[in-house]
Amino acid sequence: MKLQKNDRLLFIGDSITDCGRAHPVGEGSSGLGHGYVAQVYALLRSIYPELMLRLQNVGNSGNTVRDLKQRWQQDVLDLKPDWLTIMIGINDVWRQFDHPLADSQVFLEEYEATLRELVASVRPNLKGLVLMTPYYLEANPEDPMRATMDIYGEAVRRVASEYDALFVDTQAAFAPLWDHFYTSVLTHDRVHPDATGHMVLSKAFLDAIGFEWTRNTKS
Amino acid sequence: MKLQKNDRLLFIGDSITDCGRAHPVGEGSSGLGHGYVAQVYALLRSIYPELMLRLQNVGNSGNTVRDLKQRWQQDVLDLKPDWLTIMIGINDVWRQFDHPLADSQVFLEEYEATLRELVASVRPNLKGLVLMTPYYLEANPEDPMRATMDIYGEAVRRVASEYDALFVDTQAAFAPLWDHFYTSVLTHDRVHPDATGHMVLSKAFLDAIGFEWTRNTKS
Amino acid sequence: MKLQKNDRLLFIGDSITDCGRAHPVGEGSSGLGHGYVAQVYALLRSIYPELMLRLQNVGNSGNTVRDLKQRWQQDVLDLKPDWLTIMIGINDVWRQFDHPLADSQVFLEEYEATLRELVASVRPNLKGLVLMTPYYLEANPEDPMRATMDIYGEAVRRVASEYDALFVDTQAAFAPLWDHFYTSVLTHDRVHPDATGHMVLSKAFLDAIGFEWTRNTKS
Amino acid sequence: MKLQKNDRLLFIGDSITDCGRAHPVGEGSSGLGHGYVAQVYALLRSIYPELMLRLQNVGNSGNTVRDLKQRWQQDVLDLKPDWLTIMIGINDVWRQFDHPLADSQVFLEEYEATLRELVASVRPNLKGLVLMTPYYLEANPEDPMRATMDIYGEAVRRVASEYDALFVDTQAAFAPLWDHFYTSVLTHDRVHPDATGHMVLSKAFLDAIGFEWTRNTKS
Amino acid sequence: MKLQKNDRLLFIGDSITDCGRAHPVGEGSSGLGHGYVAQVYALLRSIYPELMLRLQNVGNSGNTVRDLKQRWQQDVLDLKPDWLTIMIGINDVWRQFDHPLADSQVFLEEYEATLRELVASVRPNLKGLVLMTPYYLEANPEDPMRATMDIYGEAVRRVASEYDALFVDTQAAFAPLWDHFYTSVLTHDRVHPDATGHMVLSKAFLDAIGFEWTRNTKS
Amino acid sequence: MKLQKNDRLLFIGDSITDCGRAHPVGEGSSGLGHGYVAQVYALLRSIYPELMLRLQNVGNSGNTVRDLKQRWQQDVLDLKPDWLTIMIGINDVWRQFDHPLADSQVFLEEYEATLRELVASVRPNLKGLVLMTPYYLEANPEDPMRATMDIYGEAVRRVASEYDALFVDTQAAFAPLWDHFYTSVLTHDRVHPDATGHMVLSKAFLDAIGFEWTRNTKS
Amino acid sequence: MKLQKNDRLLFIGDSITDCGRAHPVGEGSSGLGHGYVAQVYALLRSIYPELMLRLQNVGNSGNTVRDLKQRWQQDVLDLKPDWLTIMIGINDVWRQFDHPLADSQVFLEEYEATLRELVASVRPNLKGLVLMTPYYLEANPEDPMRATMDIYGEAVRRVASEYDALFVDTQAAFAPLWDHFYTSVLTHDRVHPDATGHMVLSKAFLDAIGFEWTRNTKS
Amino acid sequence: MKLQKNDRLLFIGDSITDCGRAHPVGEGSSGLGHGYVAQVYALLRSIYPELMLRLQNVGNSGNTVRDLKQRWQQDVLDLKPDWLTIMIGINDVWRQFDHPLADSQVFLEEYEATLRELVASVRPNLKGLVLMTPYYLEANPEDPMRATMDIYGEAVRRVASEYDALFVDTQAAFAPLWDHFYTSVLTHDRVHPDATGHMVLSKAFLDAIGFEWTRNTKS
Repeated sequence: MKLQKNDRLLFIGDSITDCGRAHPVGEGSSGLGHGYVAQVYALLRSIYPELMLRLQNVGNSGNTVRDLKQRWQQDVLDLKPDWLTIMIGINDVWRQFDHPLADSQVFLEEYEATLRELVASVRPNLKGLVLMTPYYLEANPEDPMRATMDIYGEAVRRVASEYDALFVDTQAAFAPLWDHFYTSVLTHDRVHPDATGHMVLSKAFLDAIGFEWTRNTKS
Repeated sequence: MKLQKNDRLLFIGDSITDCGRAHPVGEGSSGLGHGYVAQVYALLRSIYPELMLRLQNVGNSGNTVRDLKQRWQQDVLDLKPDWLTIMIGINDVWRQFDHPLADSQVFLEEYEATLRELVASVRPNLKGLVLMTPYYLEANPEDPMRATMDIYGEAVRRVASEYDALFVDTQAAFAPLWDHFYTSVLTHDRVHPDATGHMVLSKAFLDAIGFEWTRNTKS
Repeated sequence: MKLQKNDRLLFIGDSITDCGRAHPVGEGSSGLGHGYVAQVYALLRSIYPELMLRLQNVGNSGNTVRDLKQRWQQDVLDLKPDWLTIMIGINDVWRQFDHPLADSQVFLEEYEATLRELVASVRPNLKGLVLMTPYYLEANPEDPMRATMDIYGEAVRRVASEYDALFVDTQAAFAPLWDHFYTSVLTHDRVHPDATGHMVLSKAFLDAIGFEWTRNTKS
Repeated sequence: MKLQKNDRLLFIGDSITDCGRAHPVGEGSSGLGHGYVAQVYALLRSIYPELMLRLQNVGNSGNTVRDLKQRWQQDVLDLKPDWLTIMIGINDVWRQFDHPLADSQVFLEEYEATLRELVASVRPNLKGLVLMTPYYLEANPEDPMRATMDIYGEAVRRVASEYDALFVDTQAAFAPLWDHFYTSVLTHDRVHPDATGHMVLSKAFLDAIGFEWTRNTKS
Repeated sequence: MKLQKNDRLLFIGDSITDCGRAHPVGEGSSGLGHGYVAQVYALLRSIYPELMLRLQNVGNSGNTVRDLKQRWQQDVLDLKPDWLTIMIGINDVWRQFDHPLADSQVFLEEYEATLRELVASVRPNLKGLVLMTPYYLEANPEDPMRATMDIYGEAVRRVASEYDALFVDTQAAFAPLWDHFYTSVLTHDRVHPDATGHMVLSKAFLDAIGFEWTRNTKS
Repeated sequence: MKLQKNDRLLFIGDSITDCGRAHPVGEGSSGLGHGYVAQVYALLRSIYPELMLRLQNVGNSGNTVRDLKQRWQQDVLDLKPDWLTIMIGINDVWRQFDHPLADSQVFLEEYEATLRELVASVRPNLKGLVLMTPYYLEANPEDPMRATMDIYGEAVRRVASEYDALFVDTQAAFAPLWDHFYTSVLTHDRVHPDATGHMVLSKAFLDAIGFEWTRNTKS
Repeated sequence: MKLQKNDRLLFIGDSITDCGRAHPVGEGSSGLGHGYVAQVYALLRSIYPELMLRLQNVGNSGNTVRDLKQRWQQDVLDLKPDWLTIMIGINDVWRQFDHPLADSQVFLEEYEATLRELVASVRPNLKGLVLMTPYYLEANPEDPMRATMDIYGEAVRRVASEYDALFVDTQAAFAPLWDHFYTSVLTHDRVHPDATGHMVLSKAFLDAIGFEWTRNTKS
Repeated sequence: MKLQKNDRLLFIGDSITDCGRAHPVGEGSSGLGHGYVAQVYALLRSIYPELMLRLQNVGNSGNTVRDLKQRWQQDVLDLKPDWLTIMIGINDVWRQFDHPLADSQVFLEEYEATLRELVASVRPNLKGLVLMTPYYLEANPEDPMRATMDIYGEAVRRVASEYDALFVDTQAAFAPLWDHFYTSVLTHDRVHPDATGHMVLSKAFLDAIGFEWTRNTKS
């Protein structure tokens, strides 16, 4: 397990992270929203009560990496977390497909450069960094939006390897489910999953930080 | 793992099970409420997608075992589940302590006899039965209400052993947390916990049915 | 133009037809909902005011062809329309993909047989009948749900040809849009389109009944 | 068809244009309100998907031409549209008839001068301009308010001819309906019509810009 | 003054009479609605406090004379009033103009025959009867709906003279106002006036029953 | 009749005047509230339509004369009315009886001095001034609060006579009713009457300004 | 102290007793409303915790003694209380003064006879009975409604003496306050007092049953 | 009785004092909330009407002594009360137990020092000061949170003795109840009691100020 006693973890991202969190900074049983951040909190606290971990959520619905940059000082640097988790990019891609005529778009070059800049600014002060890819809940890798999302995910992978971050490939984490379900089972818009889909994200995150699921299972 | 493909699991109990479930029978992403039943569903579906399991929730807030008996035919027998989980008894005890003058109480003898009668009526038709004890989120075993709850929990243990049920000692599952937290961290009324407390229940349940947490963890 | 003065047209279907119509029978400026039926009404009335046409909407959200059968006597036969339009089948297919474990499904054989039975019962009393296919707003014809929907659409075509109905291939009507937009532009769940998508349906319907768009355009 | 690929069209006016649009600038499927602007958008997008047109709505309920002048810089000039459509004057006339004692009125001279001034300021930067007359849904041309409205409409016609604008005589567009309906069929206050009345406006507008209704009608 | 001590007056009609009255029978300061019936009550009670009069309102919005017939036994005969006032007919005419395609209409013959039948059934038991004409707040007597309303008003006059009723020509009562105002000053739909319009009705009614306005005016 | 064509009348006072008026200045059919000001408006407009009078209401619930002084510039002087009506003093007295311990009270000396000062400041610019006494709907003149209210009413009488104002003795206007009713018939708190009580105020006001009730009564 | 361990007390009456109680029978911390019954409950329970008393409230707003008779079997006899408290009569008197024209009134003879009949039916089964007079919060005993209320109170006194009831003269209990306050301090309608007024009732009741206020006061 | 005519008493504290009071300063029948302050007010006013006492409530939910310090000038010193009552400390302790990881806590040293500083600043200007201890509604004195609360209560006792304050040991006042009830009877979270619990606080406070409960009890 990579986390240590009293570590404080900050999560930033879009609506998948937000999920109705409290403002200005979501924390505690009623402040983390109802998505993967809240699930991770319940699992960490119930199975590692002695670690006395704090989780904080500053995800904002609809955000792109450009929005994160705007609020990076206040919502990340000023909070001085021990660990930081970033999952961003879904809206950067989605807006190109559902509002193609919108005035400005976050294309790949800006996306990767901004993500790298943000990571670079905070990495030295962190005990640990987790980068989670954006995803699209579509099984067909040739679907135009899925294909674009995968390309953005590769950018996350590059930044993660450059900055010694734990890398979570969320798109890959969902793949096993598509052998058994059509994606509508989890989501109608292919972006916002139900609690099962969030649990896929939670498990992928916890596996990445070395969570020992069976540490206090009675044998 | 004790569950098999296409099994249907029914959960019955009080507000801990209910948690805002849909009526008449809660099922699916939005119908199971927001407590341990929903957590169990998300964990089962995300980690065992191939099992195609169905979960159904018929918990009712405020119920005692006497209330379960009243609706047993309609809410349990008629639904013909493969597996049944029962967690009842908190209100049977609580009413003796917060409404001691109420017209009638469910004392121990009636509690155990009724539970046994209900279990006997359904056990032959089940693939599996899980009996979860009632609990009181109080660390002091000599607290009058905690002590009474433990006695009711022992009744559950007896019935479980007589009817070949998986037994989940929920009071014991919470115990490790009290080494690190005062109970107010999870709950103010010592009955209704936050998501962390529900995850303690979920883990105790899943461990009982042989859930393999690490089956698809990337090594 | 196939419609005649004082004709009364009845529309039945699912949420695409319903769109918030009034009950028990939606009619008039505020009773037809806000979907293609209301658009057709506005276009017919503004361009053919002398025809004095009445439109009635009995679409119900979530309906399958099995639901139509249940209410056919009351909602179709008893209303004795001059013209009838049926668009059904989306939910018959969707439930197989988003709730694959649901207790019962409307598979192809039942779908086509029921549609044929309903059409047969009403056709002799109608001046005209319009059958509109179900659709799925997905450009990839090999997507599993799209492919299934196309098969259901072929069943509609067969019934239409047997019963002298005007046939509207809604899936084909949407196709030209996909050359220019990803489907998210019109819809996030690939079923419920915005007003533009409804106008595609309206135009396909009106073209089928011989609507002359330019009859009173000032040259 | 006078519109070209990627053109952006701005609509300004009173409640007939507003119809519940989004603020500060209404745009897209859910932002244009539910009146003629939204209908025009659905028709343009469904029949000319390749043009990739953008429509924006800055109509404000209750506005007179004097109100337009107040917000002209922010709501028109700053938005730099390719095409502009103006329909104003109903409230300028109505206030003289329903609040004759109000402190100030927009009489004809001010109306025409202001409209001319606004048009002059923006015309050089436009690809195209559409001026739509105000109207009153009263068949009797000698009704005092109808007669006044017609005089204001003539002012619009003068300004249109001076500034090379497409001119839409909305009062004339409604006339054919009065052969078949009393105006109460469309409206109780003779100002705000139902969707059919808005479709009359939409058709008049689209005919003016050379919309080809039958371009993709299957023969 | 024609009213006597302790007389009970019943008012029946459509929305003009109803005006939000209480159910089943509106009476007293908060039960008579906010229209002419309430105004009449305030004037009678403040200027003739010694008469101890009771007023009851059974007007129903949207009613035609056909609707009155349906509820005549319960809402008029059973209440055994001393005086009865009837104002009906606006909806009988309006429906012919705003919903010309509706399934059935109350044409003149049915209107007059029904009104006569209702009056005949109750007249012998009344101390006094007041018949008020329907009206349309349109100054032009050749407007189609106004002209029809005047014809219905003449039917009321005939019935009044046959059954010794006080006759109130409401259309005539409004006429003096049109010399000074366009009708929009009082009403936008030409049916539902503001408090000033209701006061015109109140004064016409009170003049008919011999109300002495100046009886206790300090000289 | 003392009012002339196009006169503008301003009413200021407490909750009796306010009655839910619009802000910042109540005017017109929906802006004058539902009390005596609205009744006066309806009576003036229906019986003297040719005068084209405007009425404005700036009554504020709970106000004392001290509150009027605070807003006199903005709510009276700046509005430059032709006629002004003041009815104030009920709260000045009431607070001494229902909140005797409140920090400050408006005793008689301050009341009369303030009223005189306000009247003096505005009188020169008015065509006419109406001063209405405060009242208490209690028949017993020896009731302590009634007796105090009468003393305040005498102060109004003095100021009226000094400044050539029309004087309306509202307490006297109510007196005839108490021969027939206990005050609870009109009001439970002896301050806020129902519409009948407001009509008593309206009649007293209209009589004072020379309103001719029967000018257009058909003989 | 006249009450004994485990006694159950029932209170019946009008709005003074009701005060928002729960239905069908108000009981416990949140079920007794917010009036004197709830105050009595808090005082009894905090000062005599060992008595384990139950209080039940079946007061209904607006009730007269005639209404009590209608529900006496269900709301009193069937509940089999140990003690019963009745406070009724305010509405019996009030309706004669605020709705003098209402169809029927409960005059003194009916009031006293009905109260006697009800008391007679229940007295044999009671450990104790408390009869509280109606009251009117008016200091002047010659006020017509106050005078009538006092006469009704004398009827209560007669019935109490006949049936060995504890008699509570509530009107007398309020009298000392009027030496210091005008009644508006406690109430604006002279019927519904604030919490201070209810405490006057509570104290009068508790004194009647022998409540020892200082039994556990620390000296 | 220690209070004198016209004394003004100020209460400050946390949610137990607040109980929904009005802002900025709660006073009077509807402004003091629904807790012990309101009960004390009703008892003082009903039994000592001649004292003409004023009570003011500035309790704020969630406050610690650190919060009191922040608003001491505005909410205490500026109000210049005759008597001041302080009950604070519950949240100071509770936060250590339910949010142990919160950024800052009010430990004992700060608590006592701050309380002493606040008391010192105001004592010279007061006629009387009442210090009430914090409490925890738990019968077991060895419960960790109860034990801590008792330690904070001792700090209050020290400050009270240093500054000549009346000392109210609220924890001791509740003790007699636990011989008869489990604490759940009064409260589920062991902090917020029902009206009975508030009455325990009220009685303890009133006994401390020399309230004579039986002064006007009829013997």
